[in-house]
Amino acid sequence: MSYYLSKITDYDFEKALVRVEEELKAEGFGILTEIDVQSTLKKKLDVDYKKYKILGACNPPLAYKALTSEDKIGVMLPCNVIVEENNENKIEVAMVNPFEAMQGVKNEKLSAIALEVSKKLETVLGKI
Amino acid sequence: MSYYLSKITDYDFEKALVRVEEELKAEGFGILTEIDVQSTLKKKLDVDYKKYKILGACNPPLAYKALTSEDKIGVMLPCNVIVEENNENKIEVAMVNPFEAMQGVKNEKLSAIALEVSKKLETVLGKI
Repeated sequence: MSYYLSKITDYDFEKALVRVEEELKAEGFGILTEIDVQSTLKKKLDVDYKKYKILGACNPPLAYKALTSEDKIGVMLPCNVIVEENNENKIEVAMVNPFEAMQGVKNEKLSAIALEVSKKLETVLGKI
Repeated sequence: MSYYLSKITDYDFEKALVRVEEELKAEGFGILTEIDVQSTLKKKLDVDYKKYKILGACNPPLAYKALTSEDKIGVMLPCNVIVEENNENKIEVAMVNPFEAMQGVKNEKLSAIALEVSKKLETVLGKI
């Protein structure tokens, strides 16, 4: 399995952002951070980049469990969700697969929590 | 090697945040996001958690290289830096080790960039 889960949608960029936020909320995730990569790269490097946003999604009860199981897991939190315009001008949504991304951590208790989060993110992706 | 790099400091919490930001800046990283885990967990779950902040650090030229080498690497960006009060009431700084954390991605070009970032973050940690 890959370090991310993804889906190509029929939405436009703004609608995809709204749908992602709605379905994340239904699974208990709030959005804590948002990075507009296109505008950041324009501002910092004066390069033209496609539409690409990184949303930091957090399910508080599961984040709390993860932190109390593995103190430094904050270096991999929150769970990032990308909304981007892909090379075919379609809007693609991609989410980190925490179960895969946290394999290097070697903590069984954390792995079980990460698997639960991965399943929830898969549900979100299935609904959008 | 571990998925993170860390160092216990003699600073208080606020001073550690300032020093981390200064030394990140010296290596070309700006802070794009900041999560106050203590206040977030208080607000969302009404639990008392220790001082713990997650800063999202980004070196724009290296982030741009990473994104153009591996389109979905945004699910692992920016590079997170934690400032936390550890169990001995000391202030500890921890940073993701992107070279290790991105091992599952299987992209040699990305690995070389991640190694460069890891070395820069090690430099930052050495100076604080």
